[in-house]
Amino acid sequence: MNRSELINLIHSKKSFLCIGLDTDLSKVPAHLLDLEDPIFEFNKAIIDATHDLAVAYKPNFAFYECYGARGWNSLTKTIQYINTAYPGQLFTIADAKRGDIGNTSQQYARAMFDPSSSGMNFDAVTVAPYMGEDSVKPFLSYPGKWIIVLALTSNKGAADFQFFSNQDERLFEQVLGKSQKWGSADTMMYVVGATQAEMLTDIRKIVPDHFLLVPGVGAQGGSLQEVARYGMTKDCGLIVNSSRNIIYASNGTDYAARARQEALLIQQEMELLLA
Amino acid sequence: MNRSELINLIHSKKSFLCIGLDTDLSKVPAHLLDLEDPIFEFNKAIIDATHDLAVAYKPNFAFYECYGARGWNSLTKTIQYINTAYPGQLFTIADAKRGDIGNTSQQYARAMFDPSSSGMNFDAVTVAPYMGEDSVKPFLSYPGKWIIVLALTSNKGAADFQFFSNQDERLFEQVLGKSQKWGSADTMMYVVGATQAEMLTDIRKIVPDHFLLVPGVGAQGGSLQEVARYGMTKDCGLIVNSSRNIIYASNGTDYAARARQEALLIQQEMELLLA
Repeated sequence: MNRSELINLIHSKKSFLCIGLDTDLSKVPAHLLDLEDPIFEFNKAIIDATHDLAVAYKPNFAFYECYGARGWNSLTKTIQYINTAYPGQLFTIADAKRGDIGNTSQQYARAMFDPSSSGMNFDAVTVAPYMGEDSVKPFLSYPGKWIIVLALTSNKGAADFQFFSNQDERLFEQVLGKSQKWGSADTMMYVVGATQAEMLTDIRKIVPDHFLLVPGVGAQGGSLQEVARYGMTKDCGLIVNSSRNIIYASNGTDYAARARQEALLIQQEMELLLA
Repeated sequence: MNRSELINLIHSKKSFLCIGLDTDLSKVPAHLLDLEDPIFEFNKAIIDATHDLAVAYKPNFAFYECYGARGWNSLTKTIQYINTAYPGQLFTIADAKRGDIGNTSQQYARAMFDPSSSGMNFDAVTVAPYMGEDSVKPFLSYPGKWIIVLALTSNKGAADFQFFSNQDERLFEQVLGKSQKWGSADTMMYVVGATQAEMLTDIRKIVPDHFLLVPGVGAQGGSLQEVARYGMTKDCGLIVNSSRNIIYASNGTDYAARARQEALLIQQEMELLLA
């Protein structure tokens, strides 16, 4: 999905909501656990109930890998379902935070972007910048695909290294400044945590046009209005993620309907912010 | 495997060699491709041919993930084979370079360290430090398990951010200094690229006792003698990885025997360095 298609999607759905599929067997409704693939069945029901309210889904790979090959199978079925049931209607993000030497990142890129090899065809992957340009560039060799580089994350540990600074800038600012030369705003986004909403002003000085993926609205405590105030551009420029607040709104048989209610509340707030 | 067991293994085998299982279907011998699981069969033959010469194996996850769930199945069979066929005789490293918010890193830790969940039981996992303490600590909650934190990598892109510095130190030095407080030299190691061997002198000032995992001897161009000169401690303190030079020594039916020859050359050099 290219940038103008993504922007069109945001305006037609009046939403810049990403739903994080951090699907945890200890939190899904008990009645699903007897099914052959409870993770996939849970995801499918959540997607079917919310697909018109969200512009993106973001499976968090850790929640699948903890079940080994079986979990990867559930993940593969999930992305295949989105691509088949809602073609062109959803932006898909592999939240995998990968990054390694070039030769290795090439293999990770195949995992995310080459369905003939891995069975999976995401639009975007989150990448960790620590190993620099050649660890990130192989992901950009797939036309139409995106990378989303970790810049400023929403966790406590973000303070450990991301704020390391010389006289001129902090590490996350150097990541933004340097990495934007590796691609363009048509193929790169940045992860910026919502707990640092006021910092979006500084970040927008460095990357005025890039889309930002903002996790941490909801369970990690950010405010949607603040994020929009400091981070929104004329093209929206934001994809805001919510995971647990939506997908675990209920752990009863009404979980999909309740997830829709929660997603709808956020979408309605986003509609006002986009107006 | 705890630290003293690892040190004993190094001295009894007279080796600090790690063999990287970066198993690529485009490089394995053609006669394996008709088998049901060529990746596992290749790994098994390499392991059987070299297990007495190496102290560690390091499957690089990207090379399995590029084949999706099927690749994860080959990976799982590989680690299970090592644990079953050579119990207590090999240190196993999940080269996955993971790292995310705490709740997510917990799930990655289950993938690497909890066989009842994922089927996999590695001794160690490589982690990326960008997201800080809470992204790394969940991996340390498993007794007897290790994390190997990226400090100074061997690729060109290492220069992009790892050398970012204030007046006092560079980022990789800050990573070494801060992160060593999160665990101990009994549970933490660092990745230090061999292409920067002379920098091991500075690194040893910060982490005198930690084991260092040194990739890049061989295909990435480092020298074993240099690494030992600048990085070795009284406990050895080094695990040196070689991947392609060993596992792709031949792509004929003699691949396992040729891999053994290459591993033996390195082991013999290590034996002299340990003497």
